[in-house]
Amino acid sequence: MLSAQMTEPKQTKDMLGRSGLIPVNEALHILLSHLEGIRTATESIPLTEAFDRVLAEPVISPEDLPAQARSTMDGYAVRAADTFGASESMPCYLNITGEVQMGTAPIGEVKKGCCYKIPTGGLLPMGADGVVMLEHSVPVDETMIEIIKGVGSGTNLIQKGEDIAQGKRALPAGHLLRPQDIGLLAGLGIAEVMVTRKVRVGILSTGDEIIAHTEVPNPGQIRNINGIALAGFIQRAGGIYCDYGIVSDQEEIFLPAIRKAVKENDIVLFSGGSSVGVRDLGEQVVEALGPPGILVHGVTLKPGKPVLIGLSGTTPIFGLPGHPVSALVCFDFFVKPAIRQLSGQINEPKLPAPYVMANLARNINSAPGRRDVVRVKIIKEDKIWIAVPVLGKSGSISTLSRSDGYFLIDEDSQGITENSVIKVYLFQ
Amino acid sequence: MLSAQMTEPKQTKDMLGRSGLIPVNEALHILLSHLEGIRTATESIPLTEAFDRVLAEPVISPEDLPAQARSTMDGYAVRAADTFGASESMPCYLNITGEVQMGTAPIGEVKKGCCYKIPTGGLLPMGADGVVMLEHSVPVDETMIEIIKGVGSGTNLIQKGEDIAQGKRALPAGHLLRPQDIGLLAGLGIAEVMVTRKVRVGILSTGDEIIAHTEVPNPGQIRNINGIALAGFIQRAGGIYCDYGIVSDQEEIFLPAIRKAVKENDIVLFSGGSSVGVRDLGEQVVEALGPPGILVHGVTLKPGKPVLIGLSGTTPIFGLPGHPVSALVCFDFFVKPAIRQLSGQINEPKLPAPYVMANLARNINSAPGRRDVVRVKIIKEDKIWIAVPVLGKSGSISTLSRSDGYFLIDEDSQGITENSVIKVYLFQ
Repeated sequence: MLSAQMTEPKQTKDMLGRSGLIPVNEALHILLSHLEGIRTATESIPLTEAFDRVLAEPVISPEDLPAQARSTMDGYAVRAADTFGASESMPCYLNITGEVQMGTAPIGEVKKGCCYKIPTGGLLPMGADGVVMLEHSVPVDETMIEIIKGVGSGTNLIQKGEDIAQGKRALPAGHLLRPQDIGLLAGLGIAEVMVTRKVRVGILSTGDEIIAHTEVPNPGQIRNINGIALAGFIQRAGGIYCDYGIVSDQEEIFLPAIRKAVKENDIVLFSGGSSVGVRDLGEQVVEALGPPGILVHGVTLKPGKPVLIGLSGTTPIFGLPGHPVSALVCFDFFVKPAIRQLSGQINEPKLPAPYVMANLARNINSAPGRRDVVRVKIIKEDKIWIAVPVLGKSGSISTLSRSDGYFLIDEDSQGITENSVIKVYLFQ
Repeated sequence: MLSAQMTEPKQTKDMLGRSGLIPVNEALHILLSHLEGIRTATESIPLTEAFDRVLAEPVISPEDLPAQARSTMDGYAVRAADTFGASESMPCYLNITGEVQMGTAPIGEVKKGCCYKIPTGGLLPMGADGVVMLEHSVPVDETMIEIIKGVGSGTNLIQKGEDIAQGKRALPAGHLLRPQDIGLLAGLGIAEVMVTRKVRVGILSTGDEIIAHTEVPNPGQIRNINGIALAGFIQRAGGIYCDYGIVSDQEEIFLPAIRKAVKENDIVLFSGGSSVGVRDLGEQVVEALGPPGILVHGVTLKPGKPVLIGLSGTTPIFGLPGHPVSALVCFDFFVKPAIRQLSGQINEPKLPAPYVMANLARNINSAPGRRDVVRVKIIKEDKIWIAVPVLGKSGSISTLSRSDGYFLIDEDSQGITENSVIKVYLFQ
């Protein structure tokens, strides 16, 4: 099935001899299907460095958390049965026979008719099975307390193993470690975790007209925008980048350079193929690096149509359009999911991408059969969020910089009318 | 006005002698008002390291981008007037008298009745003022082309300075540099940017019962969860952290330690004050470090009520609740905005926080006058997103780890009923 999907786009050519365009979701499916079961190597790292890394194996709790029942309130540890029915009009009286200190095991036992003073987090002393909140007690003297609200067994306690029980799975394999997950593992005394190695992404920029951003262009030359912007997107997606700089688009120079990058990285991006010549070169090079070679050449996406997706062994190769906006849209739609997949991050159940709802400021037309990515600026007017389309040519990097996010016009739509409520995906 | 707001919470005491609770928005306003105009020092760094940093000053474009008009299509550079009215039934014919090469200035001039072949991104040659797409041309022979769709002046071009004009503000001061912004600056040839120094946040963990996560607890001891989790949240918020480890809650040890941290950081957090004793210590210490001292003690937030917010000179000090969930909620609501403000990040116009809409799986009650932060897991059922509340005590770190995000029940609500559509803010 996969190889049928793989070869299909090659069979369809448009009138210029280019491969047929396929829908974004289908292209993504083809790509990810080929990456199933492929994952970077694993490594053991200290928990203190594990933030934003992906677990390579499940973490099974080595102990109960908490190790013993603790109070969740400041108050008095009691035998709950002693307090049943206590109320403001009918209080009960308990002798204070001890006090729980933080950080040490309580001494002795709470006997019938007695209680221990206990702080939040204090270990429940023997004999007690509930805690009366400070607010529901009135001191009589230093040795006696009046209880004005009774408690049941277990009230105001966190039980042994209630947070997480010994032997239970604390976190599944493939889990991206957020700060709170690191906190949970710290609570379980886990000092090292087995994670997947960060996904390495190589970047090559090509095109005769491209120069480094630190150089002064001659007429016709332009500075390299994509290389540096892609480096930022790679880091944001959890990967690390290796920038191979600007490489000539002559095949005898470009092919060895990209071959080296494929050897040294988990994913390789090249960008700059805006002219027909470079597009053709990209196609030849990806085929030369195969099998399997080209998976997708061109998608029904605007901007981003001419994206080239291939595979050299298990290494995805992306030929991104030369126009910065197109390149960055393709990164978001195709490269980011590939980075996640190779890092072993589980997507089941997938979480939806967060958005904000806003009113569209003007009509936007779209060709049916194409997914449009429309950049917008978000402004607030009369307490309502308005999405103002930032129009400009796809060669214009400033449109992306002036935008707060984008919305999508899907393949089956011919456009969206002014004042429609749309979902805007923020760039951050 | 500010000092009235500042002292007000101190005047109101509850029945236990604690300061009165104030609403979350008011507490945030008090905090941020005191930080107005305060910002970390500036530094000049290479553009390649500027991702996710905040601009200290506006960037004015030193040149036009693009420097000259360029084609946005593969096709033919023409005098538009030559093609007026051209159609499939009534084509016009032009002589191909040149070709634009990428990376070099075009030679000669496009004369009347003539055209140059031009690639996407190629410089517009003299004489030409529009580009006919390849798709709207039919080759006659090597020297002549048939135009089947005329163009106007400026069609399929990006004009000189159209992306950004020389002398215009490319980015404002306070702008957080996203990958696309770095790309824009690279395009303008900017190699160094002036940014604010990263906000340094010191973390102290206190409480007699707290031990390092690498140690084995005796009865009554618990491992330090907050320190390591807060370090992750600080990094995510764009700050850098300095962990002072576990500090005894005896005032003669704690006060010098926090004084040192205040000296060495832009913000100081201490956490662990879940018992009354530590809460009192926190209050004393923050007053001792003043003026101005305590700004807020306790907010109408659950979890997170006992948060302590103070200021020592211009350094915000946060006493976070000892319970991990409460501590992390307080971080999100108060510490993160402070980090952003001190980094100089502009919040005008503020962007809304992105969310996903989901159906609430069960009724959730709330006390009026309090903002509840309810953790949820997001699942998909029959193509509908369902938010399932993850219930558990605020001492339970696993509730936060099992959650995908949270929703808010505001002060004026008594709860939300099952199947209501709610906004869920994802943890990432």
